[in-house]
Amino acid sequence: MQLKIKFLKWSAGIPVAMLHKETAKKLGIHTKARIYLRTLIKHPKEFHTIVNIIGDHIVKKDEIAVSSEIKDRMNLSNGQKIEIGLAETPISLDLIKKKLNNQALSENEIKEIVMDIVGNELSESEIALFISSMYVKGMNLKETIYLTKAILKSGNIFKLKNKFIADKHCIGGVPNNRTTPIVVSICAAAGLIMPKSSSKAITSAAGTADTMEVLAKVGFSVDKLKKILKKTNAFLVWGGAMGMVPADEEIIRIEKELKIDPEAQLLASIMSKKLAVGSHYILIDIPYGNGAKVTKLKALLLKKKFEKIGKYFKKKLEVVLTKGDQPIGNGIGPVLEMIDILKILDPKQQGPKDLETKSVFLAGKLLEMTGKAKKDWGIKKAEEILSSGKAYEKFKQIIQAQGGAIKKLIPGEFKHNILADKTGKILEINNKAINLLARIAGCPTDKSAGIYLYAHKDDKIKKNEKILTIYSESESRLSEAVKFYAKNEAVIIA
Amino acid sequence: MQLKIKFLKWSAGIPVAMLHKETAKKLGIHTKARIYLRTLIKHPKEFHTIVNIIGDHIVKKDEIAVSSEIKDRMNLSNGQKIEIGLAETPISLDLIKKKLNNQALSENEIKEIVMDIVGNELSESEIALFISSMYVKGMNLKETIYLTKAILKSGNIFKLKNKFIADKHCIGGVPNNRTTPIVVSICAAAGLIMPKSSSKAITSAAGTADTMEVLAKVGFSVDKLKKILKKTNAFLVWGGAMGMVPADEEIIRIEKELKIDPEAQLLASIMSKKLAVGSHYILIDIPYGNGAKVTKLKALLLKKKFEKIGKYFKKKLEVVLTKGDQPIGNGIGPVLEMIDILKILDPKQQGPKDLETKSVFLAGKLLEMTGKAKKDWGIKKAEEILSSGKAYEKFKQIIQAQGGAIKKLIPGEFKHNILADKTGKILEINNKAINLLARIAGCPTDKSAGIYLYAHKDDKIKKNEKILTIYSESESRLSEAVKFYAKNEAVIIA
Repeated sequence: MQLKIKFLKWSAGIPVAMLHKETAKKLGIHTKARIYLRTLIKHPKEFHTIVNIIGDHIVKKDEIAVSSEIKDRMNLSNGQKIEIGLAETPISLDLIKKKLNNQALSENEIKEIVMDIVGNELSESEIALFISSMYVKGMNLKETIYLTKAILKSGNIFKLKNKFIADKHCIGGVPNNRTTPIVVSICAAAGLIMPKSSSKAITSAAGTADTMEVLAKVGFSVDKLKKILKKTNAFLVWGGAMGMVPADEEIIRIEKELKIDPEAQLLASIMSKKLAVGSHYILIDIPYGNGAKVTKLKALLLKKKFEKIGKYFKKKLEVVLTKGDQPIGNGIGPVLEMIDILKILDPKQQGPKDLETKSVFLAGKLLEMTGKAKKDWGIKKAEEILSSGKAYEKFKQIIQAQGGAIKKLIPGEFKHNILADKTGKILEINNKAINLLARIAGCPTDKSAGIYLYAHKDDKIKKNEKILTIYSESESRLSEAVKFYAKNEAVIIA
Repeated sequence: MQLKIKFLKWSAGIPVAMLHKETAKKLGIHTKARIYLRTLIKHPKEFHTIVNIIGDHIVKKDEIAVSSEIKDRMNLSNGQKIEIGLAETPISLDLIKKKLNNQALSENEIKEIVMDIVGNELSESEIALFISSMYVKGMNLKETIYLTKAILKSGNIFKLKNKFIADKHCIGGVPNNRTTPIVVSICAAAGLIMPKSSSKAITSAAGTADTMEVLAKVGFSVDKLKKILKKTNAFLVWGGAMGMVPADEEIIRIEKELKIDPEAQLLASIMSKKLAVGSHYILIDIPYGNGAKVTKLKALLLKKKFEKIGKYFKKKLEVVLTKGDQPIGNGIGPVLEMIDILKILDPKQQGPKDLETKSVFLAGKLLEMTGKAKKDWGIKKAEEILSSGKAYEKFKQIIQAQGGAIKKLIPGEFKHNILADKTGKILEINNKAINLLARIAGCPTDKSAGIYLYAHKDDKIKKNEKILTIYSESESRLSEAVKFYAKNEAVIIA
């Protein structure tokens, strides 16, 4: 049946379609049924969605009302005619159950599931079931490679002809630890091509994309990014906006809600993004330890898997294990992290030493891998580029190319200091509690919310000295955060 | 913050709340955040929901727009003031992960999860994760009992003082097999109290509630049901409308979407409903075999679990295993099943023999369990009640008490005959394919859609004789069903 498109005046956050009761009856469509929408052109676009039947308040009998999510995905205009009909239950739901029943999936089966995620043919609950099946039953190496390929195929691939394309990635979990902008600036200044796409925060206070957004735009089309890269040799953007791996974005959205992060998806998510930008050299950072995402043993196992996948795709891939048992840097939250970064990049300022040391170590590794520095001389070369101001210049170029500029940054207007209740030594700074604290304060959406840490593990502290300051953009969030701190031991003094 | 309630003019099918952008910012609430709504009375009602932020098209700054689902749940009126704020992530999400990680849950932990499901504190994806955790990791007997208790506590309990309260239940999976209205009519005519609540179809073409809805209302309050019961000794209604086990209804809604049905939930769902109406005698029918929900081995294991749970709750519970490898009765779909039932109940008509025999067997069992018939004389007594017309009279009373009347029933106006393509014997009638076929034709929502079977297993059939007729209320659904039949072997002739 052909219907006219009408736009809903609000954003539901998810695709929503509404039909007139009579129209639904005529089509034999019930509330919560799955329908397809198909444009009337030669190579039609198709999109699936769950339908909400309604009376005659919003839509007429010859109309279908769609939310902005559907409008954008299908590039529709008001009044446009479109074909709609009942969609069959996707076979991929059976494939998800196959995985849930502990059977390995074939390449085509995994492709089918990923395609149905991108086409919105699977509902949020069904994607939750897929995530849960990976979490509980795991995926073997073959399946993980198939998943990587399928996610890669779901979007746009960035074809560049340059043998010096390099990339680094951290599996996350450690507050701040925002080495990426520093590493990219150093390496690009040294002549490497660094097309860096990052994700936004899943469970942490900020992702690199959230932090970069403080100074520059992070959402660009692939065409625009190619131009930026020509000018600066590097960019630091949000992968989601590039449309490179839409399947990954959708899975991550549900993972955020469920707060689980299955290993196969973690591997495929990272590898598909590195492959999409055409990297030849890939450096993976796995922080381990108490409060990190993984234990040392798990980190070693993960390292092996990364190496095997890298080998399969014929890439020069190295994995470093780093200590991840406390935050790295002083600020936590987009603005506060960017303040740390600028202090390190600017040779006239002094930034947090721990973050600088780690960034230089990672940059040095990449310079050695690519032959831009001789073996064991990478760190020295990275330090030189940093202290000469070349890395800072490169960073400014990148920010400018991404439509931004360096500016004075100010943390959230509402703040609260946490003081030491006794004299002693910092025994522990709990990553998860710090991340949660920053999130309750408003991170990552409220850019200037976050935490400033005055001390790190093993530092001595006196009674009534400041341990940290909580910043927020709203009074209610600040008071929630203060309450949370009182109930949770984020910092332990002994 | 206090806001005024504004009703959305459409039903989303799920709870939806919308805030003005400025209000959301003030509160530090982001799109997709979880909020609580709390009434301003002495014993406030609280409800949680995911919020959609919007511009100023629908709500003003001092308003919150809510869908009818929230309005009904909280009993709100337009313009009413209400307190809203950020809700914390429910602890129950961690408990679900505990189960997913194969740890047993305590009584309080299961109660917490069930309470959060009822309070809408868990999202659909999170409930999907819970269902998946039960499906993959299972629940031990203790956990299943805790789940039964928690679901039971989530709603209203039906307190009756009569020692002859009895109930029967079938785990389902076999098309038609609509013994319940017949068994209830026979047993109530014999003096038993039969407060029968049934569910609507999950994966099948119809549930008993869907079928009863053809002739009578099935949604009543507990107060109204008590009055009906006084008059007729029995009712046949939809459990969902009674508000007796809301947690069960919510879990089943997501199970429907995922098309999985974990054993612990199956046991708890059935047992909580039997306990909620205060049954002393419970008869459980487990159809087994090729194409049924369970194999004979699985049926035996399930039988033992039912018996143990029955013993725990001090009920007289019996489980019968019956053959479930093909549809029982001729009609599949609400109207077509009711036609079969009326033919069996009316002594002047002749109904499908298989359905009659099974109904009489089950009724006889209940009459023996309750002492209304002597051992081995139950079937004979049930047959007498049926052939005397007493059961039919009782059924008419029930229909009338539920606001309905016996009327002439006509299957869907669009129909298509399937003919045998060769002469031979019916080798197999596939339950799942028959159910799917009926659902594609419009069941259970389109009451008069469905299938009429002319033959059963082992029957001889000649080429071009009718095997079955597909009925539908819409042409498009009929043509989908015909296409489906052509691709799937629902009936095999050899």
